[in-house]
Amino acid sequence: MAGSVTGNIFKVMTWGESHGYGLGAVVDGCPAGIEIDEEYIQKDMDRRRPGGNKFGTKRNEGDKIKILSGVFEGKTTGTPISLAVINENQRSGDYGNIMEVFRPGHADMGFYKKYGFRDYRGGGRSSGRETLARVAAGAVARKFLSQLGISIKSYTLQIGSVKAEKKNIEDIFENQFFMPDKEAAEKAEALLKETSEKGDSLGGVVECVISGMPIGIGEPVFEKLDSSLAKAFMSIGAVKGVEFGGGFSVAEASGSENNDEFYMGENGKILKKTNNSGGILGGMSDGADIVARIAFKPTPSISQKQNTVDIHGENREIEIKGRHDPVIVPRAVVVTEAMAAITAADMMLMNLSANIENIKKVYGVV
Amino acid sequence: MAGSVTGNIFKVMTWGESHGYGLGAVVDGCPAGIEIDEEYIQKDMDRRRPGGNKFGTKRNEGDKIKILSGVFEGKTTGTPISLAVINENQRSGDYGNIMEVFRPGHADMGFYKKYGFRDYRGGGRSSGRETLARVAAGAVARKFLSQLGISIKSYTLQIGSVKAEKKNIEDIFENQFFMPDKEAAEKAEALLKETSEKGDSLGGVVECVISGMPIGIGEPVFEKLDSSLAKAFMSIGAVKGVEFGGGFSVAEASGSENNDEFYMGENGKILKKTNNSGGILGGMSDGADIVARIAFKPTPSISQKQNTVDIHGENREIEIKGRHDPVIVPRAVVVTEAMAAITAADMMLMNLSANIENIKKVYGVV
Amino acid sequence: MAGSVTGNIFKVMTWGESHGYGLGAVVDGCPAGIEIDEEYIQKDMDRRRPGGNKFGTKRNEGDKIKILSGVFEGKTTGTPISLAVINENQRSGDYGNIMEVFRPGHADMGFYKKYGFRDYRGGGRSSGRETLARVAAGAVARKFLSQLGISIKSYTLQIGSVKAEKKNIEDIFENQFFMPDKEAAEKAEALLKETSEKGDSLGGVVECVISGMPIGIGEPVFEKLDSSLAKAFMSIGAVKGVEFGGGFSVAEASGSENNDEFYMGENGKILKKTNNSGGILGGMSDGADIVARIAFKPTPSISQKQNTVDIHGENREIEIKGRHDPVIVPRAVVVTEAMAAITAADMMLMNLSANIENIKKVYGVV
Amino acid sequence: MAGSVTGNIFKVMTWGESHGYGLGAVVDGCPAGIEIDEEYIQKDMDRRRPGGNKFGTKRNEGDKIKILSGVFEGKTTGTPISLAVINENQRSGDYGNIMEVFRPGHADMGFYKKYGFRDYRGGGRSSGRETLARVAAGAVARKFLSQLGISIKSYTLQIGSVKAEKKNIEDIFENQFFMPDKEAAEKAEALLKETSEKGDSLGGVVECVISGMPIGIGEPVFEKLDSSLAKAFMSIGAVKGVEFGGGFSVAEASGSENNDEFYMGENGKILKKTNNSGGILGGMSDGADIVARIAFKPTPSISQKQNTVDIHGENREIEIKGRHDPVIVPRAVVVTEAMAAITAADMMLMNLSANIENIKKVYGVV
Repeated sequence: MAGSVTGNIFKVMTWGESHGYGLGAVVDGCPAGIEIDEEYIQKDMDRRRPGGNKFGTKRNEGDKIKILSGVFEGKTTGTPISLAVINENQRSGDYGNIMEVFRPGHADMGFYKKYGFRDYRGGGRSSGRETLARVAAGAVARKFLSQLGISIKSYTLQIGSVKAEKKNIEDIFENQFFMPDKEAAEKAEALLKETSEKGDSLGGVVECVISGMPIGIGEPVFEKLDSSLAKAFMSIGAVKGVEFGGGFSVAEASGSENNDEFYMGENGKILKKTNNSGGILGGMSDGADIVARIAFKPTPSISQKQNTVDIHGENREIEIKGRHDPVIVPRAVVVTEAMAAITAADMMLMNLSANIENIKKVYGVV
Repeated sequence: MAGSVTGNIFKVMTWGESHGYGLGAVVDGCPAGIEIDEEYIQKDMDRRRPGGNKFGTKRNEGDKIKILSGVFEGKTTGTPISLAVINENQRSGDYGNIMEVFRPGHADMGFYKKYGFRDYRGGGRSSGRETLARVAAGAVARKFLSQLGISIKSYTLQIGSVKAEKKNIEDIFENQFFMPDKEAAEKAEALLKETSEKGDSLGGVVECVISGMPIGIGEPVFEKLDSSLAKAFMSIGAVKGVEFGGGFSVAEASGSENNDEFYMGENGKILKKTNNSGGILGGMSDGADIVARIAFKPTPSISQKQNTVDIHGENREIEIKGRHDPVIVPRAVVVTEAMAAITAADMMLMNLSANIENIKKVYGVV
Repeated sequence: MAGSVTGNIFKVMTWGESHGYGLGAVVDGCPAGIEIDEEYIQKDMDRRRPGGNKFGTKRNEGDKIKILSGVFEGKTTGTPISLAVINENQRSGDYGNIMEVFRPGHADMGFYKKYGFRDYRGGGRSSGRETLARVAAGAVARKFLSQLGISIKSYTLQIGSVKAEKKNIEDIFENQFFMPDKEAAEKAEALLKETSEKGDSLGGVVECVISGMPIGIGEPVFEKLDSSLAKAFMSIGAVKGVEFGGGFSVAEASGSENNDEFYMGENGKILKKTNNSGGILGGMSDGADIVARIAFKPTPSISQKQNTVDIHGENREIEIKGRHDPVIVPRAVVVTEAMAAITAADMMLMNLSANIENIKKVYGVV
Repeated sequence: MAGSVTGNIFKVMTWGESHGYGLGAVVDGCPAGIEIDEEYIQKDMDRRRPGGNKFGTKRNEGDKIKILSGVFEGKTTGTPISLAVINENQRSGDYGNIMEVFRPGHADMGFYKKYGFRDYRGGGRSSGRETLARVAAGAVARKFLSQLGISIKSYTLQIGSVKAEKKNIEDIFENQFFMPDKEAAEKAEALLKETSEKGDSLGGVVECVISGMPIGIGEPVFEKLDSSLAKAFMSIGAVKGVEFGGGFSVAEASGSENNDEFYMGENGKILKKTNNSGGILGGMSDGADIVARIAFKPTPSISQKQNTVDIHGENREIEIKGRHDPVIVPRAVVVTEAMAAITAADMMLMNLSANIENIKKVYGVV
């Protein structure tokens, strides 16, 4: 079954493997007339790279995005936008024991059992590099949303046991974790160093905020805004949990505590005194910021010796070689923005047909 | 945009409002040759009713499901299975202040802003009764899955601040909360009584377990098993969070703690020493039980006075009359099973085309 | 696979068999705010019945449509519109030899081989009654289109060897064939009588015209207006050919003959001197009437003895009993309108997201 | 709306314009384990080029296909197969009067009105080069189908007024028109020369035959085999009509003439004495060859002077410069095969879930 396409109107199909020719995304259904260029997309691509904030030093200038179609004279034409990154290092390495052994915490066994064999080079399709294509497509979605006054911002709330508070959003570009909390970032750095030295890894939590979305976006009952966002976030490798607003903590709240009371703001806007809903009621945006939290598991590739099995049904030991991020959370921050943007773009387009008045406006019927 | 259809191959479309003629689901894409009858489906329908376990007393014999098509001589024919419940009480009540006032914590405002007006009778499409159709379709999916050795079981892990442990799964039919923990159920009962008397409400957490699924089910990269299940669960009204296996707690674990080591079991089966993955790796089933936890917010309909606004843009006070469940979690237990079953059925069918060997088996090609 | 759902945004799912409980359609994605009632839909339902024009005498008052959901206070609410007809005669007749024998020209064998068994009562899902649901959903689409100035009209151009000309469109309600040509209708009547007496049947050709569609509707390259309409028409039982504008005859024309020259009409409208394109260029509407012709095969149920085989793999003879329409074309006229309306409605909604200016109008962005 | 994706399980998304960076297709949902390489695909690509049969002389070695992903060690991996052709000549030419003038018979006006502006270089997305991507994806589908004993062959039955008969299928590679009739090919050549010298163009008819498909493929009622094929064929530029089996001529036949009688063949196979159905009954394959005819209009790009309008709403004259095929039919032959293959592949996969016995075979359930 086709699992590499997502979206109802704003559709994204991704392709590519970590050690193949390259990776890419094709965006179909992006409205015509939106200004976009490679430079705009590259900024998001760069944020995904190691040290992708001011703090870090870019190790090289790789992962260059190229627009292959769908943009003419600087604007989207309404036809498919093909985006690609060529892999710089396509040589087949020595995959040695990885070829036949299923790494714990990885998709190796699933791929092997599902398809009958697998591309064992660097994780193939389940590699973290797959998110390159999401980020590229997400940048297109983000540019479209910006035309409608919608913006998206993610940051890190937790690395291992170190929890951050949303103290100063400007600080996220000042530390390698994209944390809005300098002190927490320092603690996280120490913890990461310690963990890394033990050949171990860490997980964390990212918070994603969508601002500026009008009321009523999301399609009851199965294509709700929160259900679609949950699917989008959960499709990112290593994600184990998604929650909105109060999230799991609302289980302990009472209705009188949890309900957000409405009141009339200036300019006739309906506002809420609190935002326990995380900006979504009944699966539709309620005018407040949409707030999601996404839990990432620790990187499964660790250098410690682990027990496992191989494709021949034998028990084996494995030691994973090579350089692996001891925490993937910082690099995943922009990926959560990308998935939120792709989903929000689709939802904004789906909502166009909600009522006959919208449609009459487009077709100029009085 | 059409939001009332879900599924790629096993497709379900639901319809109906709480105070209209009735509610129903049409299941398209269910394989032919599966034995099913109204009695089988009715069992799940009954579990969704108040007091739907042995403990409770059924208040009446309502919500009778009827199969309108797609079943002939006791078996599914491969054509659409139309399922419907006629609403027994269709009379328009006195909706009074509800008509023009947006209830806090409800979808009223979203519906009004999205569609330009709304069906104000009992929540319309966002009523809890909408889940009737999900449960009916879910029973069809469950019957199909049972042919392949797959079963699904949900139970309550938390009501308000009262947390249960999975002590004895048989106990879930012995208390009104479907808790596998007698002591916790007693505490929850006391808490619920107290909260209810204050005109307030409670939320909770449900755990859903899918057993017997073969390895490799789920479609990378966007139609992963966990992303699809997350969407399905999150589409249930009042759900604010979904997590798998270790869930949010994995953020604090290290890789060496979190990775589940594989080993060879008897009969050549690959087993895992732990199940922190919740049965899903890389978006595909890993052979272990699939374990999800779903957080529900407290019922937003409370009898305490609340501040809000109306359709005219005026600040208002609202007191919600009528009988409302002070906690919806127990009735939602079977709904989580239904959504899991619908999703798992779809995923099992999607996987059929994963490799050429599967296909040759079906078409008898050597 | 689910084959009973159609549409991308304006989605229709149909269900039901000729001899089951009833038949119906659920329309999801219809915009809110459109006035509709059962009376409006019933008019189309009645046209589908034998003698469904002024000429004929209605044999009874059957096939009453009921709206089960999605309409409140006379207007669509944006939620699924469930439409159903209860079969008045559900008793199982004596299906005798039909049960095990595959009727030539029918889908019996296909159903049996595909699903492993089949509902042999009156054709089951492949019965002509299945089109009842299409007509009901089509009426909803037609009402929506009427809000945008779009109308659809079909009529019969051929019955067996008798060809009609489009002389007077008003005449179509004055003869049983819906022919816009009195003389041809008389000849067709004589031919039909003669054919019917021999226990044989006739086919024919229907022309369908969509008027008032703005320029640019249709989505290159796979969801073109003509390709989507072709699929819709070809999905009607007994259809063997679909063509637009010049159709098959364009194969013989030269480019200079076939190209429609553009010129500026009054009010700044772009017009065409001819309409060989049938109103569609490059898969998009070109502002002229959209003109399609649809070929129907003769009714396969004939009373003459035929050779065939049975489910046991034995050669058999069959004589089909019972009353069968010796020509289905007249009853199919309204079905072609319904399929055109469903498709056109979907295409009008799909086009909403074509460019950023459309979207800014809906969201009030300057 | 996304119009560049097709298929339910075997999904194809195409991208690219005639004068951009290149063109490509991504195939998602192709089963794993199928041997394929660039050489296999290139054969179909070459047939699409001018002089793509033995008769013609290849003008150059262009349109080289490259597999960018989804194939590992010579076999499909089950992940997206990205295919691309780099345009060799991307320089922007002098588009002069084409930029602002709508060419009669072309999609120019539709694109302009739909998207607000258009890529005027060589037709952009509506160029014949767009079919390159279809042919590449079609070759993948063809290779998959060959594993199941299914083959597809198209040939030309008509060029302008010259009709061919299916005399000798081997002859199709011996003339530039892919006609199975030497004499007709000679007449067509003379007619084409004469027409071309007048600055005019010709249309024609292609017949496509799918052999080896098992009984019961196709999904009633909207995803029928014929309706899906009709959509696929009609989506090819310049197609104005599609018919199956007897096609439009069945309108004149009687039921007793048109019904194909069944009989038992050797090996217990059900056969038919005739094939007026074109291999499809009730939307499902009936075991006979599937036979479709597809009508193409004459190339709209002619060098004769034509009247038209421009983007400013002024009447204009246009003379189209440059080299244009005076007939596109020969190059479209392989495109019809590609669209048939893509559709048939999807239908074969959709049918996998038709009944529980199929599914039990895949999952090894007894």
